[in-house]
Amino acid sequence: MDRLREIETDGNSNPIQISRLALDMGGSLIKLVYFSRNSGDHEDPLNDSVPISNGVNGRLHFAKFETTNINDCLQFISANKLFFGGFQHQENPTNDRSFIKATGGGAYKFSELFKEKLGIILEKEDEMDCLVTGANFLLKAVNHEAFTYLNGQKEFVQIDHNDLYPYLLVNIGSGVSMIKVDGDGKFERVSGTSVGGGTFWGLGKLLTKCQSFDELLELSQRGNNRVIDMLVGDIYGGIDYSKIGLSSTAIASSFGRAVSNSNELDDYKPEDVSRSLLRMISNNIGQISYLNALRFGLKRIFFGGFFTRGHSYTMDTISVAVHFWSKGEAKAMFLRHEGFLGALGAFMSYERHSLGDLMVNQSVQIPVDASSGTDTNCNPLERDLNETESMQCSVYQA
Amino acid sequence: MDRLREIETDGNSNPIQISRLALDMGGSLIKLVYFSRNSGDHEDPLNDSVPISNGVNGRLHFAKFETTNINDCLQFISANKLFFGGFQHQENPTNDRSFIKATGGGAYKFSELFKEKLGIILEKEDEMDCLVTGANFLLKAVNHEAFTYLNGQKEFVQIDHNDLYPYLLVNIGSGVSMIKVDGDGKFERVSGTSVGGGTFWGLGKLLTKCQSFDELLELSQRGNNRVIDMLVGDIYGGIDYSKIGLSSTAIASSFGRAVSNSNELDDYKPEDVSRSLLRMISNNIGQISYLNALRFGLKRIFFGGFFTRGHSYTMDTISVAVHFWSKGEAKAMFLRHEGFLGALGAFMSYERHSLGDLMVNQSVQIPVDASSGTDTNCNPLERDLNETESMQCSVYQA
Repeated sequence: MDRLREIETDGNSNPIQISRLALDMGGSLIKLVYFSRNSGDHEDPLNDSVPISNGVNGRLHFAKFETTNINDCLQFISANKLFFGGFQHQENPTNDRSFIKATGGGAYKFSELFKEKLGIILEKEDEMDCLVTGANFLLKAVNHEAFTYLNGQKEFVQIDHNDLYPYLLVNIGSGVSMIKVDGDGKFERVSGTSVGGGTFWGLGKLLTKCQSFDELLELSQRGNNRVIDMLVGDIYGGIDYSKIGLSSTAIASSFGRAVSNSNELDDYKPEDVSRSLLRMISNNIGQISYLNALRFGLKRIFFGGFFTRGHSYTMDTISVAVHFWSKGEAKAMFLRHEGFLGALGAFMSYERHSLGDLMVNQSVQIPVDASSGTDTNCNPLERDLNETESMQCSVYQA
Repeated sequence: MDRLREIETDGNSNPIQISRLALDMGGSLIKLVYFSRNSGDHEDPLNDSVPISNGVNGRLHFAKFETTNINDCLQFISANKLFFGGFQHQENPTNDRSFIKATGGGAYKFSELFKEKLGIILEKEDEMDCLVTGANFLLKAVNHEAFTYLNGQKEFVQIDHNDLYPYLLVNIGSGVSMIKVDGDGKFERVSGTSVGGGTFWGLGKLLTKCQSFDELLELSQRGNNRVIDMLVGDIYGGIDYSKIGLSSTAIASSFGRAVSNSNELDDYKPEDVSRSLLRMISNNIGQISYLNALRFGLKRIFFGGFFTRGHSYTMDTISVAVHFWSKGEAKAMFLRHEGFLGALGAFMSYERHSLGDLMVNQSVQIPVDASSGTDTNCNPLERDLNETESMQCSVYQA
């Protein structure tokens, strides 16, 4: 069977023309980015207003699955014929297997599974490389991609392409990677922490019996961390320890109040537990990020990864931590497409390897529909892990 | 009642002569240091061999109580008449109240309680000041106080008095304080984290139903963190991510494996939970400590506070973290009298305030009996929280 020929006909007069699927397979989530050429401009009103010169006109699609549900992911790829989106290997163009770009540990772990079930060869791309490529692409090519978030105020950041580097990229997945980025393809993973999204979800699941990450995150919105956290005021009898700048409401010891009473786990509300956990982890990530930014004199820290999910309290806590420890010197910024940095980077590696430098010259507009933006009012529960993200993008060459 | 006169008679021909009690009252533990003059040299064979010039001959005693059991502490002080160990206020020597030096938040929180129950006025000393004074005293005056611990090897460190400063003091209590120490009384609290001993014990209590910190610590010795932590190999299909120096056995996400299976809390062994928790917290403290040492070019990090308790796995994890992140440049060192820095500092503040510069000129030998040393084989359970530490010290002026 010639799969590539099948793309062009597919028994359909209006061919699907899905091209280029890329995967980022992490410890907890598998992220997919794929591009579909438009089969007819009338389907995409945006294209009417956009002059296309010699580029590819279509949409970028984003989807994610829990890694434990890898079979759902395989089925999704199969049902939507996304595996036709690979490329023929240049050394052997008659080979009918699809080669799909993939990054993250799953590119190694699930290599055999993809070959066996879908006949797909996963072309492995380095994880850090992909994260950086994805972040650089988004920061340079997408308007309104980065924003600050402090005291409930979201503010988009205008990125000066000539003054983007260096910056610290903090990718919060199951674990956390901290990467000093000095340019396109110029980076170093300088630090990281094992206390990340997997810790929030793993510990949270054990402590609250929540069934999903988003449910746990949603719970935290209603919780009060003061129930379980030991505050400075708890130790100091309600007063500040002002000499060293700690107010009575500062957390002295996360979960420290659980020490000093006879409550058992069931005596605590799950929302309070979730809140304390989220605050502990977000604050810790913010602090370690700042300390690493300080090492290298980096003023800007961009946070990506699927941990924040546009969740206001998470972003607020990270921002406050960076602000507090840096005494206002460093700025935490968030990325709207936070979770797809690695997958985007893998997607863009097609260009590097086989199609020249196409993407770098692209300008991109990504209209975001209301339900999938990182709006402060967005309800994380609307983003089910197993549901395809509806956010679509028009990508064109200027 | 003239309490001071009572000391000297106490209806006993061999007077008690307890003098100078000092307290460090933290969020989880109250630490006591008190000095007893010897009533007769025959009681302390060490003194026979020690030439005493004009100093005070006696013993330093250490004790601790859980802060929740404050009443046990009050009773202990009362029963042992330790409150006679205060000093008369110089401005009003006829006032019969005892003034006791105290530090930590409890010096504020329990101020009224001490006055009401024991007639004691707590003289508040700054917490950071006391920690630093206590650490400097121990490092300068006590042989075999500091040691490194790596791969199960404990090695005492010879402290060069002329090359002690600067260093980073990390005090791990309920929360963690990180203090850059530049000299006697010269210091700055540069950082800290709320993820400390209170987090280990608080979260551990909720997750395992352990009844004491030491029980939880003991459990961890038998646990396997790989059951719940997500390792690099779990994500990468058993292989290393060697490009960035992460072996397959490195922890990618603490508690991250709990995400990817259907186990509930009860399905995990408490010892495995305890082990993961201890490793997460110790590693995190080691990392943040190193990053702060790096900021100020400090090569030596001394760890104090009641978190480690001479526990080999805790020290090993902290040491490995410092070693890993600093690429061997920085050294983690531990203090044998780790838990009593603040109380010792408060104790020494008597000198500063009323008795001149006595302690600074002292040389001290502290013989430690086997059960209370920080030996690798020491069983933490032998150190019950409510039991007076049996470790005693001869303090004399050379």
